[in-house]
Amino acid sequence: MTHDTAAPHGSPSTGAHPREMHPQRWGDPAAATALPEAARGLVELAFGLHETPAAAEVELPPVGLGDDVLAALADVVGPDHVHVDDASRRLRTRGKSTPDLLRARAGDLADAPDAVVRPGSHDEVAGVLALAVEHHLAVVPFGGGTCVTGGLAARRDGFAGLVSLDLVRLDALLEVDEVSMTATLEPGLRGPEAEALLAEHGLCLGHYPQSFEHASIGGFAATRSSGQSSAGYGRFDQMVVGLRVATPRGEWRLGSSPANAAGPDLRQLVLGSEGAFGVITAVTVRVRRLPEVKVYEGWRWGSFVEGAAAMRTLAQSGTLPTVLRLSDEAETGLNLARPDAIGEESTGCLMIVGHEGTPAQVESRRAAVTEVLTGLGGTPLGEEPGASWAHGRFHAPYLRDSMLDVGVLVETLETATFWSKVDALYADVRGALERELGVEGGSAIVLCHISHVYETGCSLYFTVATSAGEAPIERWGRAKAAANDAIVADGATISHHHAVGTDHRPWLGAEIGDLGASVLRAVKADLDPTGVLNPGVLVP
Amino acid sequence: MTHDTAAPHGSPSTGAHPREMHPQRWGDPAAATALPEAARGLVELAFGLHETPAAAEVELPPVGLGDDVLAALADVVGPDHVHVDDASRRLRTRGKSTPDLLRARAGDLADAPDAVVRPGSHDEVAGVLALAVEHHLAVVPFGGGTCVTGGLAARRDGFAGLVSLDLVRLDALLEVDEVSMTATLEPGLRGPEAEALLAEHGLCLGHYPQSFEHASIGGFAATRSSGQSSAGYGRFDQMVVGLRVATPRGEWRLGSSPANAAGPDLRQLVLGSEGAFGVITAVTVRVRRLPEVKVYEGWRWGSFVEGAAAMRTLAQSGTLPTVLRLSDEAETGLNLARPDAIGEESTGCLMIVGHEGTPAQVESRRAAVTEVLTGLGGTPLGEEPGASWAHGRFHAPYLRDSMLDVGVLVETLETATFWSKVDALYADVRGALERELGVEGGSAIVLCHISHVYETGCSLYFTVATSAGEAPIERWGRAKAAANDAIVADGATISHHHAVGTDHRPWLGAEIGDLGASVLRAVKADLDPTGVLNPGVLVP
Repeated sequence: MTHDTAAPHGSPSTGAHPREMHPQRWGDPAAATALPEAARGLVELAFGLHETPAAAEVELPPVGLGDDVLAALADVVGPDHVHVDDASRRLRTRGKSTPDLLRARAGDLADAPDAVVRPGSHDEVAGVLALAVEHHLAVVPFGGGTCVTGGLAARRDGFAGLVSLDLVRLDALLEVDEVSMTATLEPGLRGPEAEALLAEHGLCLGHYPQSFEHASIGGFAATRSSGQSSAGYGRFDQMVVGLRVATPRGEWRLGSSPANAAGPDLRQLVLGSEGAFGVITAVTVRVRRLPEVKVYEGWRWGSFVEGAAAMRTLAQSGTLPTVLRLSDEAETGLNLARPDAIGEESTGCLMIVGHEGTPAQVESRRAAVTEVLTGLGGTPLGEEPGASWAHGRFHAPYLRDSMLDVGVLVETLETATFWSKVDALYADVRGALERELGVEGGSAIVLCHISHVYETGCSLYFTVATSAGEAPIERWGRAKAAANDAIVADGATISHHHAVGTDHRPWLGAEIGDLGASVLRAVKADLDPTGVLNPGVLVP
Repeated sequence: MTHDTAAPHGSPSTGAHPREMHPQRWGDPAAATALPEAARGLVELAFGLHETPAAAEVELPPVGLGDDVLAALADVVGPDHVHVDDASRRLRTRGKSTPDLLRARAGDLADAPDAVVRPGSHDEVAGVLALAVEHHLAVVPFGGGTCVTGGLAARRDGFAGLVSLDLVRLDALLEVDEVSMTATLEPGLRGPEAEALLAEHGLCLGHYPQSFEHASIGGFAATRSSGQSSAGYGRFDQMVVGLRVATPRGEWRLGSSPANAAGPDLRQLVLGSEGAFGVITAVTVRVRRLPEVKVYEGWRWGSFVEGAAAMRTLAQSGTLPTVLRLSDEAETGLNLARPDAIGEESTGCLMIVGHEGTPAQVESRRAAVTEVLTGLGGTPLGEEPGASWAHGRFHAPYLRDSMLDVGVLVETLETATFWSKVDALYADVRGALERELGVEGGSAIVLCHISHVYETGCSLYFTVATSAGEAPIERWGRAKAAANDAIVADGATISHHHAVGTDHRPWLGAEIGDLGASVLRAVKADLDPTGVLNPGVLVP
């Protein structure tokens, strides 16, 4: 095994993946940019600037596993794939929520795993789980590490140790079926590599969440991810037709057919199970032909309500583009959807409408969507805002790091509801955040957009910026709790696409009921009788 | 309670629903027609005619419940809603598979419930379940009684009695949300009544399985039904956004949002649960505007393979009509999809293509579909075959009764798979049926159609006609087992839309694995600890 504590971040000696992230920041620091000058001015005006660089990387707690257990793990995955060096352990300490970053910046590494284990096959995953049961080790499946809901911060009390099960070596495209238009992918594939492998066959998945560049196929499945092109390509859970899962009780394969009546759809029990029921070792997904044309354009609406009504009309008339998102007045004013334009004046509400497909498909769908939007009073803004959005579509988390650097706390949260409840939910969540963060004093900005639509409803995605203050984690914790309370009081979902993790777990019971919580516990007890898989995550 | 054993079938004194079926036949005998002369000739040629009228209705086994239990049930639902008369019990003895009908015709009423109980509210359902737990009564939820997989033939061994929980009185449209385009329906509503109530609001569900005229909303949900317009309106499980369920452990409500990442989608665990986990007491569904135009047309293909390839092209290019079905050469030759034309000569393979919507939607979709089908070599046949199909779309089960009357066993079975496996599955299931029924001797006809398509695959629906012979139930049992063995050997699903019931239960484990079966048992044990709900159904 690798004990090289002097290894730099991303060095080959830790087996680091090229898309491995910085332990205290989002993504690849080389890809990050400084806070744009225009934004810096805005921030200074709103909150003042308090340069707060992260603490130097601190040493980790000692590895809590004995050499016998480490040797047994090495027997399963090979000695090169058990890592106890600081760099490997540091990156797998929690995920990338703002509280996670604040803790990492403060040098709090209390949740660090004892070891990072990288299996190279389904059987090696099964072998690690068997050892975990034997030695009562908590196991945290790890994909891209992009989780923002505490899903990588498993409980370790009562366990002999905590192992981060890094699936990075499971990175193959196992099978392509161009007749059925399906592909079987291993869970460690990151978004770009999955798309690149499919592109060799002229195919694509079309799944582009904001975490796309770093998140993994297994993570998309385990958390019911939804991407920016969900209007055209669907949610990830709608793409999945088959699953292979390693559980402490053995292998589980699902996926006899696109859809069926052979009892409950158990695939939908694995999707969203967040590593608590088993480790997904292969995912069979529906794929599409690579689009020949991609065009993104902007539309302006007089208000969020008008723009949302237009989205509803598109969804309910079956006239959906590939990408459809709408910023509220506040988000539009700050140009958050157009990072190139931050600092410029923008009024009304910006909608981004994207079309992908063959030239004929794009032409006919674009014409149909344009007719609806024009008829409803939208103002076309041409392709410039669309191009600006597309250029910055994965960049917001870098901006968050830049804001944290100057003492501004930026975080997001999201929910979904039915169309008739959108206005109330928007007002209630926004009101809860503003009240808790004391917007009266000018110390918080709350922005919102709709980025996923259905015939019956849509998501709401809030971005909050506030002065970090003396105790930013606690400050945000109170605001987030107030928002969650408002969400469940309105009967909406605690998460549209970020998942439950540990952060949302206290509110899950209010959404799925005592019996829903009981059923999750029963399934967990059945598949993972000793509870070694992601303890404390998801299951109430 | 009502003991009036002399009450005729359907009389008000048994509280019979107008859509209640004949205990030995499909549907309403008044709506049935005699075997068409042309068909009669074909049948005689193939199998000979052996007029075999059903046995006179026989007496039932005595009611096995004591007066104390009956009185307790009457306390919950009211004395008018506990029925122990023969007519009520007879109709709730099993469902409408051909073996069910053969047993009913032979006077075998061994599976008759002891009592039929008709709750009028969710709370009364909960009250009946509480009594069932207290007295250890098996409870069989009953909607329209159209089940064809033995889902109404629960095990009664070890129980103090068996109660048919008839949901007919739960027949309200509870709520319409025209902004979200959702409606909340009670489970006892039959298809036509549900559509009629929605039509008062200009809305529709668009769910038209062959059982439409008699089946219930609760049954559609509990069995993951799929209708003839699934290409346009989706499967029933895709329509459901919310559920209210009565379980022995209390009430369970699900449905915070159209879709979410709040853990596994537990709605998909209730959908397809076939009354074994709880009793669905309300279903919130996505609805659509009533179509202004409906047009159905015929297309002819040179072969089943060519027609199936055309369906695949439509599904994978996102160019789906509302109705899309394709008969194989044998089914086309017998004009099974065009009951008006039985006896006429038909060659090749008939495809029915239907479009519903606004005039503009129908025009544009019809043009797009026509372009694809023409480009692939299909021959348009105009609207006559479409009208003939639409006229007879719910009539096939009546034809089955007419065939049974003359000694011909007719039964159907269905499955689904991915497109690349369709040819093999078709050949294997057909081969298994022909081998087992001895087609070499000319004693069986096997027909097939595709009636549900997805981007990644489709359903296969087989219709078999064979001479009933001396022991028709055993004869069909062997053929069905051979077909099921072929289905699971090919990795396909044991049912695309008929559900598991008792008939498919022995094959379910092969499809969902030992762990899938274990999970179903765990959920069952959690929600129904004493196992009173539909014992022996679904759960392996």
